[in-house]
Amino acid sequence: MKDIRLIEIGEEIHGENKAEAARVRKLLSAAGTGMLNLMASPGAGKTSLILKTLEGLAVHDAGRKAVRSAVIEADMDSLVDSEKISAAGVEAVQIRTGGFCHVDAWMVMKTLSAMDLAAVDLLFLENVGNLICPAQFDTGARANVMILSVPEGDDKALKYPLMFRECEALVVNKIDFLELTDFDMEKLEQRVKLLNSDMKIFPVSCRTGEGIGDWVDWVRSRFTL
Amino acid sequence: MKDIRLIEIGEEIHGENKAEAARVRKLLSAAGTGMLNLMASPGAGKTSLILKTLEGLAVHDAGRKAVRSAVIEADMDSLVDSEKISAAGVEAVQIRTGGFCHVDAWMVMKTLSAMDLAAVDLLFLENVGNLICPAQFDTGARANVMILSVPEGDDKALKYPLMFRECEALVVNKIDFLELTDFDMEKLEQRVKLLNSDMKIFPVSCRTGEGIGDWVDWVRSRFTL
Repeated sequence: MKDIRLIEIGEEIHGENKAEAARVRKLLSAAGTGMLNLMASPGAGKTSLILKTLEGLAVHDAGRKAVRSAVIEADMDSLVDSEKISAAGVEAVQIRTGGFCHVDAWMVMKTLSAMDLAAVDLLFLENVGNLICPAQFDTGARANVMILSVPEGDDKALKYPLMFRECEALVVNKIDFLELTDFDMEKLEQRVKLLNSDMKIFPVSCRTGEGIGDWVDWVRSRFTL
Repeated sequence: MKDIRLIEIGEEIHGENKAEAARVRKLLSAAGTGMLNLMASPGAGKTSLILKTLEGLAVHDAGRKAVRSAVIEADMDSLVDSEKISAAGVEAVQIRTGGFCHVDAWMVMKTLSAMDLAAVDLLFLENVGNLICPAQFDTGARANVMILSVPEGDDKALKYPLMFRECEALVVNKIDFLELTDFDMEKLEQRVKLLNSDMKIFPVSCRTGEGIGDWVDWVRSRFTL
């Protein structure tokens, strides 16, 4: 279990977010660190997907290196998710957002300054569990990814269009629940394509491991790892 | 199918929310209309619970009257939920919040002015799917209720404490999924009690109907219906 560092977000006033996001991007690029911003509803499986992805990235075989990863966890309160990452032996930094319902580039910058980026190839940012506000803030990540879990239903693209537009990949988690629900994967795909025709869709189950391989391959390819 | 009225929320500046919430309460009280504010994550089953509750409230037998209900639906975009309510023959008014991640008392007041409250005993407000921001705004409702669905996990009270504090009842939906998950109802109850010792907990399945009777009884009792 690794130590967890805690970054408290107080009442400070954050300036123009876009400019700070550009500074985050520049800092990460100079350090050779990729950042993936993962967004989803509460309980869709963000921490579970990160844990599965970390396992896949740690594998080093023919032509693949073991990726050095770290995770920034954001939550209004609690260290629950950081503790899970840390227990897996991966560096976790916790942002406690207080009343904030999203992560912005200023919070990320404050967090990066507490980290040794030279030792990190890929940084996961687990955003606050929320399909609305996080989509409105550029965090400085190279890729935005969202999870939709099957029990949430196939109509979410209609209700949270900005999130579907701002992300380049959609992980559909908990496909092991498909049989129990009326979730229609084709309908989801049609709705997604109307909003974001380039969006990659990865049906997975973090519980059974189904589909995780394709997803990890995409992460490696997207971040040239 | 009933007509759906649409209330668009634009760029207007909303004043002090608490005072407007008090005005909403006064208006509802004068009309003899109760309002229940229902909050939850996306896909937890807010519309499904309202539909099941409407069925239960429509029953009139020994000592129970058929309750005249209406529903205010709030979404950033789409009429999906209003259409379901309307198809069930119940009046639905849709608030389209635009970029807003919550409903405030000003949006409710604007909506109430489009309704005939004298014809409504109980008004459901289905808030935006979000466990964070809606908890920060008093809507003027007499009772705040939240849904947590089993696939979201039993740790949500740790992560969204304000929501659990602001609600007087917790509906735990999708209990038909319990067998498939490691959701621990006792752990959830312990966590809830630490935050809000008076919170009523109703385990239900909107799919199978289990537990709905007790929940509907509570709604009738809470609103003296």
